[in-house]
Amino acid sequence: MGDGTYDATLDAGWCVGPVINGGYLLTAGVRALSQDLGPKGFPDPVSVSGHFLSGARPGAVTTHVDVLRTGQALAFASAKVCQASTERLRITAAMGDLATMEGEARTLAKPPVLPPPDRCFGNEDTPDDVLKQIPMLQQFDLRMDPATTGFAIGRPTGRGRIQGWLRLPDDIPLSTLILPLAADVLPPATLDLGIPGWSRTVEMTVQIRQVPEPGWLRVVHAARLVAHGYVEEDAEVWDSADRLVAQSRQLARLAPTRGAK
Amino acid sequence: MGDGTYDATLDAGWCVGPVINGGYLLTAGVRALSQDLGPKGFPDPVSVSGHFLSGARPGAVTTHVDVLRTGQALAFASAKVCQASTERLRITAAMGDLATMEGEARTLAKPPVLPPPDRCFGNEDTPDDVLKQIPMLQQFDLRMDPATTGFAIGRPTGRGRIQGWLRLPDDIPLSTLILPLAADVLPPATLDLGIPGWSRTVEMTVQIRQVPEPGWLRVVHAARLVAHGYVEEDAEVWDSADRLVAQSRQLARLAPTRGAK
Repeated sequence: MGDGTYDATLDAGWCVGPVINGGYLLTAGVRALSQDLGPKGFPDPVSVSGHFLSGARPGAVTTHVDVLRTGQALAFASAKVCQASTERLRITAAMGDLATMEGEARTLAKPPVLPPPDRCFGNEDTPDDVLKQIPMLQQFDLRMDPATTGFAIGRPTGRGRIQGWLRLPDDIPLSTLILPLAADVLPPATLDLGIPGWSRTVEMTVQIRQVPEPGWLRVVHAARLVAHGYVEEDAEVWDSADRLVAQSRQLARLAPTRGAK
Repeated sequence: MGDGTYDATLDAGWCVGPVINGGYLLTAGVRALSQDLGPKGFPDPVSVSGHFLSGARPGAVTTHVDVLRTGQALAFASAKVCQASTERLRITAAMGDLATMEGEARTLAKPPVLPPPDRCFGNEDTPDDVLKQIPMLQQFDLRMDPATTGFAIGRPTGRGRIQGWLRLPDDIPLSTLILPLAADVLPPATLDLGIPGWSRTVEMTVQIRQVPEPGWLRVVHAARLVAHGYVEEDAEVWDSADRLVAQSRQLARLAPTRGAK
């Protein structure tokens, strides 16, 4: 390529309702950023902010990459993710090479405690009408912690927390590039607050902190503040080596409610 | 104006070392966004992501606003904050009108518990050499919780938390526009982890959730994960009516250490 324009296809299987999942779209843009900046020594997204301008549909997508600044450890770039002449997503990112970055490391974060995958709820427990509405749920192996799935039987805990094991399909190899996707595919944590429906991402920022080790990921979503019909949702992605590999925060618009106040 | 270009001046008083504070620079860009989109019905920043491309210096700054999409509740825009021909900061933002936005509201977040301002540490307790290095600290009234200032006497708690009361000077009236500033002026939470120095913001995203009520703000900074010499720092800004008015997260590069490994 080299002209800063990268083509991809958005698979209809990654829809939530009629619209492509935000994390999947973000990952499409991040791939383009990595294609552009990888050969220059900055293959990994380190900090990625996306504002979702309009809902993407399945089909062709083109990402235009604009390198803003190349520094010693990080390169900054902007990316427009477009379908035909409509921009779907504007990304700004800091890219780097996590495998070679050195420096201070310490953490207070604790990995989530989950029952083993075979004692969690998988897709086989998801009702058919939900799978039809959220085709995305059939794309990956998700095992949800029974302690956070009370919403499915009308008993949300009120803690605003959803967590589970996640394994992406074989054609999406585990790398830093897919962590924005991993951070956005669990059901919204608002379900555990008793707020129905899947919210729509307005803005999502993902910090990628480590190259993930192979194996199951663990993903935790937490929602603490709903205001004006918008929710802030934080996600953590942990790898099989018990490292917090990605942290994300998004602002999302709640699904419209029947008889809204 | 109307041409999407807005001029401002960065006051030397807002420096950390030789460089302008990230939140102050972000607020300069947000003001321009509000000047551009306010007359169109979108005066408030709702979600603002900034990537800091190069350190800004005191003096003239020009912000170029590019409106990406105008929707019903939100407008999206990009802003380049430049000094001469050098871009310092790239912002992408969702703007709205928080005073008229309606919808679901609930929260699990609890306001921080602090001793009253007159029982906290003010600037009069800050050593002169620190004030000289961080001129910014003289711009506002900050009263830090003694429970989180152990770092100043070589006794950080290790919890990675710094909190205090904040009042900005009278020439910076309290509004949604200055919340990005309020979220970035406390000393870094890494001091409470025993990591010396002031970190440099790489990326900072601020979600503005409410129009703040007049009076003292309370600000909490927390750092949980340091990796590869970078730290993720979260901030909460609470208003005098006990409402969480802004949530921010940044990725920052730690200050270089003497004899770094």
